[in-house]
Amino acid sequence: MIKVVLLGTGNVATHLFNAFQKAKNIDVVQVYNRNKKGLSLFQKHTKTTTHLSKLITADVYIIAISDDAITRFSESLPLKNKLVVHTSGSIPLENLSKHNSQGVFYPLQTFTKGEDVDFLNIPICIEASSAENEKMLVLLAESISENVNLINSKQRKALHIAAVFVNNFVNHLYTIGEDICDTNQVSFDILKPLIQETANKIVNLSPTKCQTGPAKRNDKKVIDSHLLALQSKNKEEIYKLITQSITKKYGNKL
Amino acid sequence: MIKVVLLGTGNVATHLFNAFQKAKNIDVVQVYNRNKKGLSLFQKHTKTTTHLSKLITADVYIIAISDDAITRFSESLPLKNKLVVHTSGSIPLENLSKHNSQGVFYPLQTFTKGEDVDFLNIPICIEASSAENEKMLVLLAESISENVNLINSKQRKALHIAAVFVNNFVNHLYTIGEDICDTNQVSFDILKPLIQETANKIVNLSPTKCQTGPAKRNDKKVIDSHLLALQSKNKEEIYKLITQSITKKYGNKL
Repeated sequence: MIKVVLLGTGNVATHLFNAFQKAKNIDVVQVYNRNKKGLSLFQKHTKTTTHLSKLITADVYIIAISDDAITRFSESLPLKNKLVVHTSGSIPLENLSKHNSQGVFYPLQTFTKGEDVDFLNIPICIEASSAENEKMLVLLAESISENVNLINSKQRKALHIAAVFVNNFVNHLYTIGEDICDTNQVSFDILKPLIQETANKIVNLSPTKCQTGPAKRNDKKVIDSHLLALQSKNKEEIYKLITQSITKKYGNKL
Repeated sequence: MIKVVLLGTGNVATHLFNAFQKAKNIDVVQVYNRNKKGLSLFQKHTKTTTHLSKLITADVYIIAISDDAITRFSESLPLKNKLVVHTSGSIPLENLSKHNSQGVFYPLQTFTKGEDVDFLNIPICIEASSAENEKMLVLLAESISENVNLINSKQRKALHIAAVFVNNFVNHLYTIGEDICDTNQVSFDILKPLIQETANKIVNLSPTKCQTGPAKRNDKKVIDSHLLALQSKNKEEIYKLITQSITKKYGNKL
C-alpha cells in the first residue's frame, strides 16, 4: 500500500484524489488545504487538515497548487527526507526544497472542474532525484494510468510548451471559428465533425502529412478573399501569420 | 432512383462515389475525367468517358474538380437546363454557368486519399437556385448523410474560412507541437490524449468556456520563459500573437 498525502484541493488534486480512491494499492491518508472550505469534499473519505504542522507520515507528498506558489510552499513544509513531488509541467524539479527528496508527477491533460476523467489513458510524466524514488513514483503512476513516462525537466518544459500550442492555442482557434460562424448566422455544430477528424487523423499519421488547405496549396486567390472577408484585424493577423508559416514550411513562396 | 454523373476523379469525387455506391436510391450512371488514367478505379463499377460530348442523361451532374477550374469547366459543358452542382466551400453558386440550373453540394470534411470515410456524420451543405432543385439535392445528400444543411453562399464562405482556422491552422499547430517534441527528444505520442480531449471538450461546451493556459491566466512568468525557450522566430511570433489574442479576449492586459 502506497500512502499518499495530497497538498491542495484544486482541479488536479481533486482528479488525482478520485483516481487514487479507485486504485487498490493507494491510500490517500490525508488531504491538506490552507482553508477549510476546500476540504469539505474530501472529509467524508479521509483525514483532512488546515495545519502543515499536523501532516502525517506518508510515502509520497503531492503538492498540487498553482505553479508560482510551489517553491515557497515546498520550503514551508515541516518535513525532512520525505518524497515531495509537484504536478506542474513548467516548474523544474530543482525548484522544490532540498530538505526533502524531490520529484515530479505531471499528468499531461486538461482537466475541467466537475467533469469525470478516465486516468487510464492520461500520460503521467515522472521525474525523481533518485532511482529509488523514481521507482516509487512509477509504481504510483502505474496504479492509475497505462501511459507512464520518464521525462526530465528539459523534456517536460518542451512538452508543456508544445501543449500550449496543441491545446490552449488550438482551443483559441476553435473560438475564432465559432466567432466567425456566429457573425454569419451559421451553426458552429457543422464544423464539429471536421474538428474531430482533424484530431483523429494525427493519431496514426504525422500532422506534416495531414496538412491541406489554401496555405499549403499557396492558393493566393482564396487566401486573399478570406483576408478580405475577415473584417477583424486580430483574425486577419493570425490568418496571415499561420498561412505564412505553412507556406514557408511546405516550400511555396507567398 | 437518382441518376448522378460525376465529373472528376480526385479525392472528393472518389469518396462521394464510394458513398453513393452504398446508397440504395442513387445510381452513378457515369464518371467523366479528362484523361483515362483517373478513370481506371471506376471502370469496373460504371460507365466512364473522357469526352464531354459523350455525357449521358442524369438528374444531377456533380463537378468535383479543383476550385479554380470550376467556372470555366461549367461553361464548357455541352448541357442545357440540367442540374449542375459543384462541391467547393469557396466558390459561390453564381460562378457556375447559367446554361444550367446551379447548385452546391459541399461535404464539409477533410478527406485523405485511400482512407475510408463514414459519410453518415459528415455535414453536407446544400444550396440551389430553385426550391425544386434544392429538394433534389437534399434527397441526394440525405441518402448518404444524416447531417444535411441548407447553407447560402455567404454562410458557406464563412464556414470555409472557419474551417481553415479549425482544421488547416489547427493541424499546423499540431505540426509545431511535434516539431518541439522532436527537437527535445520527447515522443509526440505523449501529447495525443491531450489533443483528443481538446477536440472532444468542445462537442458539448463552447470553446470560450474551455480556454485554459498561461495566456488565459496572463501568467507572464511562464509566457516569458516559453518565449525564451522557443529558439525559432517563427514559433515565437505565433506564440506571441495567439497569446495576445487570448489575453485580449479574456480581459487581461499583457
